[in-house]
Formats: sequence, C-alpha cells, structure tokens
Amino acid sequence: MAISLGELTNRIGGTLNGDADILITGIASLKNARAGDLSFISNKRYRPELLKTAASAVIVLPELLDDCPSNSIVMDDPYAGYALASGLFYKRHVDSLGVHPSSVIADDCVLGENITIGANCVIESGVHLGSNTVIGPGCYIGNGVSIGNNGYLAANISICSSTKIGDNVILHPGVVIGADGFGFARHQGKWLKIQQLGTVLIGKDVEIGANSTIDRASIDHTFIGDGVKIDNQVQVAHNVHIGDDTVIAGCVGIGGSTKIGKRCAIAGKASIVDHVEIHDDVTLTAATFVTESILEPGVYSSGTTAQPNARWRRNAIRFKQLDELLKTITRTEKPE
Amino acid sequence: MAISLGELTNRIGGTLNGDADILITGIASLKNARAGDLSFISNKRYRPELLKTAASAVIVLPELLDDCPSNSIVMDDPYAGYALASGLFYKRHVDSLGVHPSSVIADDCVLGENITIGANCVIESGVHLGSNTVIGPGCYIGNGVSIGNNGYLAANISICSSTKIGDNVILHPGVVIGADGFGFARHQGKWLKIQQLGTVLIGKDVEIGANSTIDRASIDHTFIGDGVKIDNQVQVAHNVHIGDDTVIAGCVGIGGSTKIGKRCAIAGKASIVDHVEIHDDVTLTAATFVTESILEPGVYSSGTTAQPNARWRRNAIRFKQLDELLKTITRTEKPE
Amino acid sequence: MAISLGELTNRIGGTLNGDADILITGIASLKNARAGDLSFISNKRYRPELLKTAASAVIVLPELLDDCPSNSIVMDDPYAGYALASGLFYKRHVDSLGVHPSSVIADDCVLGENITIGANCVIESGVHLGSNTVIGPGCYIGNGVSIGNNGYLAANISICSSTKIGDNVILHPGVVIGADGFGFARHQGKWLKIQQLGTVLIGKDVEIGANSTIDRASIDHTFIGDGVKIDNQVQVAHNVHIGDDTVIAGCVGIGGSTKIGKRCAIAGKASIVDHVEIHDDVTLTAATFVTESILEPGVYSSGTTAQPNARWRRNAIRFKQLDELLKTITRTEKPE
Repeated sequence: MAISLGELTNRIGGTLNGDADILITGIASLKNARAGDLSFISNKRYRPELLKTAASAVIVLPELLDDCPSNSIVMDDPYAGYALASGLFYKRHVDSLGVHPSSVIADDCVLGENITIGANCVIESGVHLGSNTVIGPGCYIGNGVSIGNNGYLAANISICSSTKIGDNVILHPGVVIGADGFGFARHQGKWLKIQQLGTVLIGKDVEIGANSTIDRASIDHTFIGDGVKIDNQVQVAHNVHIGDDTVIAGCVGIGGSTKIGKRCAIAGKASIVDHVEIHDDVTLTAATFVTESILEPGVYSSGTTAQPNARWRRNAIRFKQLDELLKTITRTEKPE
Repeated sequence: MAISLGELTNRIGGTLNGDADILITGIASLKNARAGDLSFISNKRYRPELLKTAASAVIVLPELLDDCPSNSIVMDDPYAGYALASGLFYKRHVDSLGVHPSSVIADDCVLGENITIGANCVIESGVHLGSNTVIGPGCYIGNGVSIGNNGYLAANISICSSTKIGDNVILHPGVVIGADGFGFARHQGKWLKIQQLGTVLIGKDVEIGANSTIDRASIDHTFIGDGVKIDNQVQVAHNVHIGDDTVIAGCVGIGGSTKIGKRCAIAGKASIVDHVEIHDDVTLTAATFVTESILEPGVYSSGTTAQPNARWRRNAIRFKQLDELLKTITRTEKPE
Repeated sequence: MAISLGELTNRIGGTLNGDADILITGIASLKNARAGDLSFISNKRYRPELLKTAASAVIVLPELLDDCPSNSIVMDDPYAGYALASGLFYKRHVDSLGVHPSSVIADDCVLGENITIGANCVIESGVHLGSNTVIGPGCYIGNGVSIGNNGYLAANISICSSTKIGDNVILHPGVVIGADGFGFARHQGKWLKIQQLGTVLIGKDVEIGANSTIDRASIDHTFIGDGVKIDNQVQVAHNVHIGDDTVIAGCVGIGGSTKIGKRCAIAGKASIVDHVEIHDDVTLTAATFVTESILEPGVYSSGTTAQPNARWRRNAIRFKQLDELLKTITRTEKPE
C-alpha cells in the first residue's frame, strides 16, 4: 500500500505543508518512523521526539508546525487524523470468501450477499446473517441468532441462541454472547437454577474485545447500545443495559441489571455491582469500584495506589481501624 | 409453550387465586409483562410496578396479595417459585442428536446412551461420557477425561486430560478445565517449569460460566464440590478446594492451594490469595480482597468505593501517609 | 513410569541417603504420598507433615535431614529439585502425530519437521511453524504468523495475523494473541476506530495461561520478552513491553503502552494503568493498583483487606472523608 501525501490529505482532511507527491507507505510512532512513514503528534510532551523524527510526514497541531522537521498535515485533532489515516492502511485478511465446505450450516439459515464463512464453523437453525458479513474460523452461531450487515467475527467466537446483533459489528476471538446469566434461587438448601429465558440485543457499530462475555437476560433482554466499544475480558452480566457510545476498557465487570448511560467512559478493571444506575457522561477511572448509583455526570474514582510494601502494610492496618481511631481522636481533642 | 395457570401452580406449588384455566405462555418482569405472561414479586420495593403490571398472573408474597391486580399464586418464596416456573418454559436448543460426523472421536471412548456430540468436536483417547450428555460444537475433550450423566457442555469448551466431572454439570462456552497450574521454580536465574501432574475433580450439579478457568493441580487435585455454581471469567488456580454448594460470581480470582468452605457466597471481582482457608458459610461482598484465612462464618468486605475524582485523589494520598499521620496526631494530642 | 531413586538423584542432583534401588513411580505432597511416591519439603513449617509422611523418598533441606523418616535427597533448594523431578514424570498427551486430515491448512504454509497439527485447526496463508511444534485441536493461526521450534499450543487457541512467536513456547487453551488493541478517537461525536496496524512479538521460553489475551499494537509492536511466564486470564493491552523473565499471575490487567522491566513478579489481580513504566526487579503483591511509574526495584502494594462487613462499612465511609477529617483534626490541634 502506497499513497501520495496529497491524496492522503484529501482523504483525512487538514492542511498539507510540503511535497504532495511523496509516497506514504505506512504509519509509525515518531520515534520508530522511517522514510515513507506517516506519524502524528497530539500531545506536546512528545515534542522532543517530533524534533528528531525520521518520518516522511507528520500530522501536527498548528502550534507545533514550526517544530516539524518533515512534511506535515496540520489538523486541530491529529489523533482523529491518525485514526482516519489508519483506515487507509488497513487490509483485513480474509482468505476464503464464500462458505468453507468444512462448516456445518443448517438448511434454513438465511445468508445475505457476499458472505464469508470460514472453516469449521457451526451455524445452527434459523440464523440470519446480513450482507458482507464475515464469520471467521471455528465460530459457533446458535439457533435463531441474527447478525446484521458488514459484521466481522474474527475466530472461535460463540454466539448463543436468539442473540440479535446489528450492522457493522466487530467481535474479536473468544467472545461469548448469550451464555446463561448467573441466576439461582435458594430452595430447600440447594441452589435452584433460574432458566435464563431472555436474550441479548446488540446495536450497530459495536466492537467487543477478545474473551469478553455478555450474558443473556433472565427475562427480557441484556442491551448493548449503538456505538458501544468494549475491550478484552469484560464481563457484562444478565439484564445489563449499556447506553449508546459508551466505551469500556479491559477487565471491567458489570453486575446484573445495572444500567449504564450514554457516552460513559469506563476505564480498565472497574467493577460495578448489580442493580445500580450510572448516569450519561460518567467517567470511571481505572479500577473504580461502584457500589451505588451515580446520578450526576462527572469523573469518579476509588481505590488506593501502589506504595512500598512495608509502608502499605501499616496503612492497610490503620484503614481497618479507621473509624475507631478517628472517633478516639475526635473524642480526645474535644474539650468537655 | 403454553400451560394453564392451574397446571403451573400444581408444578411449582403455592396457592392459586383466580382463573385456573388461563393460559400462561411466558415469563416477564412486572414492568414488561403482557397478557399471557407470568411475573413475580419477591421484594416489596417493586410494589409500584405490581400495581401497574399487565401480567396475566403474578407469584406474590402473602402480604402483597391485596395489591395484585391479576391472577396470583401466593408463595412464601416467590423467587424460588419463579425459578421453578422458569424451568417449565425452558427448552434447550439441541439440533443434532447423536454424534455429528464432523467430530473426531477416538475409538476407545466409552459413550453412554442418548449422547449428543455436536459438529467439529475432538474427543481424545480414553474419554468416558455418561448418558444423556450433550457436547456442543467445537469442544475439545482430552485424554482420559470422564463426564457423568446429563452433562451439558455448550460450545468451544476445552477439557484437558484426566479431568473427572460428575453428573448434571453445565459448562458454558469458552470454559477451560485442567490447563496447567502456574508453577515455576527459580533455578539458575531462570524459571523452571513445575510439570502439573495432578488433575481436576468436579462434583455433581456444578455449573461453570463462560470463559472461566479451573487449573489442574501440581500434584494431588483441584477440587470443586457438589452443587458449586461459578459465574463467568472466574479463575480457580491449582490445588484449590471449593466446598459443596458454594456460589462464586463473575471475575473472581482464587490463588493456588486455597481452601473455600461449603455454602460460601463470593460476590463478583473478589480476590483471594493463595494458601488461605475460608470457613464454611462465609460471604464476601463484591471486590473483597482476602489476604488471610477467614476462620469464622460471616460477611466480610474490603475496598473503597467511588467518589468524585478530585476528592478521591486527596483521600488516596492521605491513605498512603495514614500510619504516619495518625502517629503524629496521637503524639501531638497526648500530654507529655 | 518408574525410576530408581539413584537414577532420579543423578538426573536432578543432590545427595542421596538411603536405598538407591527403590523405584519411584510418582510425586505427591507429604500428606498424600504413598509407597512409591517422591515428595519434597522446602519450608520448615511443613515439618509436622514430614515426620508423618508415607513417601518412599523426600527431597529435603540439609537441616531437615534428621527429621526425614524415609529415603531422602538432600538439596539446598528442594523446590527446584521438585521442579526438575516433575519433568521426569510428565508425559504430554499427543495422540495424533502428523497433520490431521480435518484441519484446513493453506498451501503456502511452511511446516518444520515432526509437526503435529490436531483436528479441526485452521492455518491461514503464509504461516511458518518450526520443528517439533504441536498445534492442538481447534486452533486458529492467522495469516503470516510464525511460531518457532518445540512450541505447544494446547487447544482452541487463536493467533491473529502477523504474530511472531519464538521457540519453546507453551500456550494454554483459549489464549488469544494479536486481536486488535482498544484504540478509538473521538470524531464528530462518535468513536472512530484506529486500525491496529502493529503486531505482537513473543520471545522464546514463554508460557501463557488459559484465556489470556495479548493485543496487537496500534503501530510498532507489543513485546513479550524471553522467559516470560503469564498465568490465566491476564490481559496485555496494545504496545505493552514485558521484559525478560518476568512472571505475571492470574487476572492481571496491563494498560496500553506500559513498559514492565525484567525479572518482575506481578501477583494475581494486579492492575497497571496505561503509559507507565515499571523498573526491573519490581514485585507487585496481589491486587496492587499501579497508577504511576515505579522507578526503583522493590516490593509494592496497595489496597485494603477483608474485615467484617459492618466495620468495613464505617471505615470505607471514613476513607471518603479522609482528607477533610485529617485537615479538621490538624487544624483543631494546632494552637494558633
């Protein structure tokens, strides 16, 4: 793949400074770029790397233009420019267009145009797949599942029965959607299974990372809104509702029936208990532990952060006595 | 599926009030129920939804009977009633009874009666499968594994060699049982692998959620007792022992050789270090971090919970100085 | 497998006391060992179990020799001795040498000598596999992947395109390597995907546990050094760099572009945010939360630990007011 800098600028926007005819053949960081590479700078702290970069062109903020040693594309948001440029250099590896003969596909499935189904897939009865959708090798698609147009399921994915998925969805390897939610009732001293009769509804433009799991609802449905982006190893329990355009980073766990608003940003390792509500436009920083509803937009956090072990041990012990210690102190210092 | 309310009451117990002949065709929440649906109320805070429900029948607590606008089944434990009713409306999707010809099954496997093995499975030498067991598509069953009667392995599951699994076990997609425990010895500056020579023993009536992992023991065995229920993305390290009827919610991690008692309830995201013991009947709330044995039944917790980021930052810094700050304060306030 | 105690001692080192001709047929813990078993003791607190063991031989520390009721092998590091002995009793189950006919392998793949490819694998175009490498059933190997000699991929593993893996690597079931990193730019109110154009480089002698995920880089590469050992359900984000001989226990999450040094030991459930640096020889205890670079070797920790719920609730509330409380106290106690 090679594209002239002029053509690239036409595609992503911004103002070109320099040689429009130079060929760009890849994207690299300022530090690792070589001749032919495009790079970008969206944070001034990388200015020292900009000054030394060997990139053939750099997407720069206006205020860094004078520091750019190469051709440049000036943009107000170089990171978005980089995202757009990355799309020009991306080629999806799909070797086997059509349906691989090793896959086992029920007779009554409805397949759109230009479908790809890789080797060793199993597609059960009543499945609908939209046009241009790619099902990678080793995927399992259960009874009555529907997936929209332009979907991309990478490999070794399991979609359980009745799940409904919109257009333009990307699922990475090992994703499991529609497995039973975790529901049991105590009955005569044992745990009685509550059959999970609901389903999962996933909107359009959703991406879900490797080995993440989205459970089916007990009744009604688990809901993932349009434009939601979920990273790897995220657990979404039954009957959760995630609003449009929310992003969720890796290793987050969300308890049952919790409702998360639109445009939230949930950083990695956050934990949200069951049956709470998170307002639109809430940001949770990494490892935040949410035990109650958050009813105002804003940035929320919890936890304590790393320090040398010997000091931590003393502090962690103090935490466990905190209420008593503070009561004692307050009592002592107050004159009677 | 349709069942008369009278017949449904016969099956789940309780006292019917209303029309025994009305047909029930599904289960829904009080809020989403329509004509034909059964619903339930087990917590009085949902009373406003009960008053407005369109369900054809509701399983209610005796004290809520007067508030119920529809037919009702009165039970002391409506949640258990709902669990029993859910079983009436559940139909497992199994399309391919028998052994699918695409699966690769060693000649010396012993298969019980009425076995289902889906497409693209691999069953290695010496495997025993009990009667009525379903192995879904894409599963791998290693050498010498045995699985009891009435098992259900959903899809894309890996069971490594020598694992022993009891009757009535449900495993969800992506589960891995019997992979090597994490054992290395420092030797001449490198990490020397300790071969994991033990196995995994799993009792009867166990359910394990999607993408959870149960490691094989270094020596001896990892043990999961009867009636244990494990949610998604739970990690159980080598030589762990989990007592009967313990439930473990999503994203819990349990360190090696730890012993957990019977009837424990471990909420989501809890972490338990290696080589500790948890007594019977212990509850850990969400995200609890256990570093020492818990020798008494009861409810245990740890952690700090979400608050606005600016306030949290100040508090988290104070935590790191807590012992010193409290020493200073105590020193200051004490008359010499 | 049976080996004389004399021959076993020759293989693992140490000084034999007792009958060199006795046959050793397995390894067990001091407590569970029977006649024929070898056991070991590397921690004096297990001395009571040593005194009662039924093992035929025990690897002991010199100072415990007099307490050993059986034949013994004296070593300064019995744990390393046990590791070496475990290798003698390990036999990998590989039933189907050669390439199973059900696997789908692109014509242009380059396969080394003595390769095993299990059933239902998919190996895409341009893959290189070194000699003596085993690809277990149900694995997916994407375009242009290379894997060195003596590799072992257990089952149901997904390796995405262009990943490069060194010699002697062990991957457990459900591992996903090279899935897209989590990169999106906010653009016109939506999340615009940043195509992940980089790759993953994995050194030699690496082991990665079940259902762990290692993402491909946005640009450049994600790097796992030689001798790194990673446990189950670990998430390694894009552009992470992990130095040689670092060990990472289960359920750890590492944010994007973070650099971890050599010979680090990261205990289970630790969380490390993106874009930080961890020095060589750093130990993080379980569940440690790292938000800033750690620039000195040492042991680091964070978090609070389990206590009875009623007391915890009071302390957790105090934490959220900690800065204000301490300010008030300090103000009160200081004479003006």
